[in-house]
Amino acid sequence: MPSPPPVAAVPEELVPHLAPVDGVEVVPYDHRDGDTLPGGGRDVDLLALSMIAGPWLAKARQIPGVRAVVLSSAGYEHALPHLPEAVQLANAVGVHDTATSEMALALVLAAQRHLPHHVLRQHEAVWDRSAPGPWRSLADSTVLVVGYGGIGRALTARLRACEARVLAVASTDKPGDDLVDRVHGVDHLPDLLPSADIVVLTLPLTDRTRGLLGEAELGALPDGALVVNVARGPIVDAEALRAECAAGRLRAALDVTDPEPLPDGHPLWGTPGVLVVPHVGGASPASLPRMGRYLATQLRAYRDSGQLLHQVRTIES
Amino acid sequence: MPSPPPVAAVPEELVPHLAPVDGVEVVPYDHRDGDTLPGGGRDVDLLALSMIAGPWLAKARQIPGVRAVVLSSAGYEHALPHLPEAVQLANAVGVHDTATSEMALALVLAAQRHLPHHVLRQHEAVWDRSAPGPWRSLADSTVLVVGYGGIGRALTARLRACEARVLAVASTDKPGDDLVDRVHGVDHLPDLLPSADIVVLTLPLTDRTRGLLGEAELGALPDGALVVNVARGPIVDAEALRAECAAGRLRAALDVTDPEPLPDGHPLWGTPGVLVVPHVGGASPASLPRMGRYLATQLRAYRDSGQLLHQVRTIES
Repeated sequence: MPSPPPVAAVPEELVPHLAPVDGVEVVPYDHRDGDTLPGGGRDVDLLALSMIAGPWLAKARQIPGVRAVVLSSAGYEHALPHLPEAVQLANAVGVHDTATSEMALALVLAAQRHLPHHVLRQHEAVWDRSAPGPWRSLADSTVLVVGYGGIGRALTARLRACEARVLAVASTDKPGDDLVDRVHGVDHLPDLLPSADIVVLTLPLTDRTRGLLGEAELGALPDGALVVNVARGPIVDAEALRAECAAGRLRAALDVTDPEPLPDGHPLWGTPGVLVVPHVGGASPASLPRMGRYLATQLRAYRDSGQLLHQVRTIES
Repeated sequence: MPSPPPVAAVPEELVPHLAPVDGVEVVPYDHRDGDTLPGGGRDVDLLALSMIAGPWLAKARQIPGVRAVVLSSAGYEHALPHLPEAVQLANAVGVHDTATSEMALALVLAAQRHLPHHVLRQHEAVWDRSAPGPWRSLADSTVLVVGYGGIGRALTARLRACEARVLAVASTDKPGDDLVDRVHGVDHLPDLLPSADIVVLTLPLTDRTRGLLGEAELGALPDGALVVNVARGPIVDAEALRAECAAGRLRAALDVTDPEPLPDGHPLWGTPGVLVVPHVGGASPASLPRMGRYLATQLRAYRDSGQLLHQVRTIES
């Protein structure tokens, strides 16, 4: 007797973005409803989780039969405590590159073209063609993209179309690709910082990257340089960056802060040359269709091999 | 006896961006000094004008010998009354495409990702992840680029790198290029508007384009669409656009307005969903090096043929 097709419980918000996968039964569930079991009490082989936090990560053990979980987030540390070691776990690889690189580009352009200043003058209903500093552009700028994974590559494609020069940095030296001549290892950062008009952080927070941009590294940047962080706050020494901006020497555009949330009334809010947005890099409808395509790939892999792609604890479990 | 090399009076700000041109003598002048004649009283064959308005357009007749004038602006109507018909006149073609398309992209991204809202919340020193409308992205959006000259093409390259779909519109149907499958004639605008998430105006103001987006055309846009104008204010019916935005049906991001400057306290300043910046599309250091390269091309053409390229009144004069 052939085994029955795998059953995948999929959040309703993702179903319209999920093309049918032959040989997999998709059972939609409302991810906000913490009372009705995904699958309605049937055995579920694979549980897909939603973009927006719902109850079913913490309650996954209550769903009968779950053998594999696919997250909608790139981060996965939060999921490990909730799942038995025998359950396969995959994070969302590549799904958020578009949304986050788009926010990074938006922050770069807003800062270079003085949009925060213009927004505040608009709020005062005043036509004022002055700017709070020299005219700047993204075009012709040298941008250091620190972190050359999916987000860094998606950003690099955008920056190059904007006529910027990109220097890509990753954990180790690597050959180039269709976007950059070469990828510099992070050990070369001290040599690269003095030539950067703009630095964008697109790398994960790890023990190695915590405090990567400290007082010395920020001090190596040229006057007027822009630091953009769409990664995680603690990669930058927050107080050193604030001091450099307060002195008018550097500028910053931050989707993430340290601490986060940034407390109301914190001095960073009003520091000249600093743009802060409240961790909204992922706040984009672009991620849903990409998650749908990624989930289809995972369903096919699971159907064919019984194994998810991009498992985040294959070795440990 | 061979004729002496042509003499070109060039604003000092452009000289560092101008590579030497064999057989042309370049004489720098201070474009802000309205008393000292460019060329210092010598005959000047070619007068290059500066990016920032100076006195020497209006006083060009006082400079002995001028036979050709190269403007640093794309517009040229303002120059015609000041120059004898025998003087060749060329505008700056392609020089501002980078600066203006960059501002158009900055406005699109700021509006889609709610940056004006976040800037105002930052001004209040408050962490607030809410948005004044649904999450939007540039990625996956359909963008109608109306005006497919240099700025429209430069913008299209940027938009495509941002994973947007571009529909290009020009005065008449044209074959596509490396960026778009085809270019639609403006007569097809009524058919294209209903599918546009974003419309960007990058076309010149002429008798044909004045009022191109009137009440009917704006009404044909889908709910929530964004209108971006980096061209000239009167291409849009300003009151119809303001009314659609005030009703919450459309959004706008405007580098140019009608009237312009927008009077202090004008109701458009505070209309929800409207971002206004004070005609700063050209306020970019990217234009100087591009003007330097363009001027070198003009100097070579004039040296070789006695004629400027891109003359704007060849036929009339």
